[in-house]
Amino acid sequence: MAELVYGLNAVLEALQADVAAERLLMADTLKGPKREQIVALAKRLNVPVRLVSREKVERAARSDKTQGVLLYLKAFEYATLEDILSRSTARQEPPLLALLDGIADPHNLGAILRSADGAGLHGVILPKRRAVGVTATVLKTSAGAALHVPVARVSNLAYTIEALKQRDIWVVGADQNAEQPLFETDLTLPLGFIIGSEGKGLHRLVREKCDFLVRIPMFGQVNSLNAAVAAALLFFEARRQRGLWHARPA
Amino acid sequence: MAELVYGLNAVLEALQADVAAERLLMADTLKGPKREQIVALAKRLNVPVRLVSREKVERAARSDKTQGVLLYLKAFEYATLEDILSRSTARQEPPLLALLDGIADPHNLGAILRSADGAGLHGVILPKRRAVGVTATVLKTSAGAALHVPVARVSNLAYTIEALKQRDIWVVGADQNAEQPLFETDLTLPLGFIIGSEGKGLHRLVREKCDFLVRIPMFGQVNSLNAAVAAALLFFEARRQRGLWHARPA
Repeated sequence: MAELVYGLNAVLEALQADVAAERLLMADTLKGPKREQIVALAKRLNVPVRLVSREKVERAARSDKTQGVLLYLKAFEYATLEDILSRSTARQEPPLLALLDGIADPHNLGAILRSADGAGLHGVILPKRRAVGVTATVLKTSAGAALHVPVARVSNLAYTIEALKQRDIWVVGADQNAEQPLFETDLTLPLGFIIGSEGKGLHRLVREKCDFLVRIPMFGQVNSLNAAVAAALLFFEARRQRGLWHARPA
Repeated sequence: MAELVYGLNAVLEALQADVAAERLLMADTLKGPKREQIVALAKRLNVPVRLVSREKVERAARSDKTQGVLLYLKAFEYATLEDILSRSTARQEPPLLALLDGIADPHNLGAILRSADGAGLHGVILPKRRAVGVTATVLKTSAGAALHVPVARVSNLAYTIEALKQRDIWVVGADQNAEQPLFETDLTLPLGFIIGSEGKGLHRLVREKCDFLVRIPMFGQVNSLNAAVAAALLFFEARRQRGLWHARPA
């Protein structure tokens, strides 16, 4: 089902963030500078605009807070595990990917996708249930990175872990109770990181399936980091060890 | 001036986050489980509770959205530059600190303070103007780390940079347009990182005062990271190079 964005500011920001939009409904009575900005932007992005009664906009949105504009987003195009692995083949690099075990906050997911793009991961895998998908907020927080790094959704994370192992990809869980410090771990192998949810960490079943667990060495009083920060430290430590930062891939 | 927190959930969360509270005003007509939780928590934390009319609570808060509870926070106790430097002396480590050039989002500041604590920085310096200070939201997002890592506020960042240089502390600005990759930079020297604001980066005057500029090597399509993520990558790369992660300081 297509995602809906409504309200003058929200629609304007979505268009500015280059969110893939399908069409725009607009109240024929609408006036003002934001209306003009939205119409101009929609035109430039080839998003069809239809003028209808304000009542019709609100009925379509099932909300009376549309301010007369309703944007239908295209459904996000998820990748498959095969897409992700073929990216590593094309780049002639050992696979480097991340599985997110239940990230619930769209801002965290957006920041993680931005870091995954920045560190050159081949893709990110999300579970279908009990986790946020790639929404308009995620796209915006990712600064558009969600459109560049392949994101797959799977029904069963444990099953996907097995599939990775069968392809000789090592599965490394992030766990602050682990013995092994991140910075003493070889991350140049074919690798899938597993990042737990905010607050709760890895699910027991997922943790047990990991080949090994690493912790980010902590030197202060609080023993955990923001989920997006922790993910970025893993991604960039792998990138640092792989030493491939001088040239961008084609 | 003391910061005010009001509303049932906000007050409850502030008390749970162990925010230093001065006193609590509560409407004498208030009832319900959250009221009981708040009273119990305030008692345990030795926060004096005064029952007054609901009207009085709203007048004190200058808001009609108090839900009958108003918490006065103690003013956050900022450190001085001397406090921060004496911490590095006490630990017998070369100084490692961060100057934040205008972080405006309290969630970002909270996450940065949490990472600063985790990476064992000796302190963080904020400008007094055009930047967020340590508010209740910052404390909460930092998971309490803001109470553990010394935070100083200064009137003039450029002047503070000069003061650091006079003490033989190297000033390193983070700038995605710099030539020098972070991972090829010696971060074991006495060091002050300068982190720019979200979106805008370093101010020109501040940039010109840096001893050198480093960039986080990027391998994707989007050329920047979330401000809190970028800060954490700098902090932990310094920590990694210093190799001090096996023991915590006293």
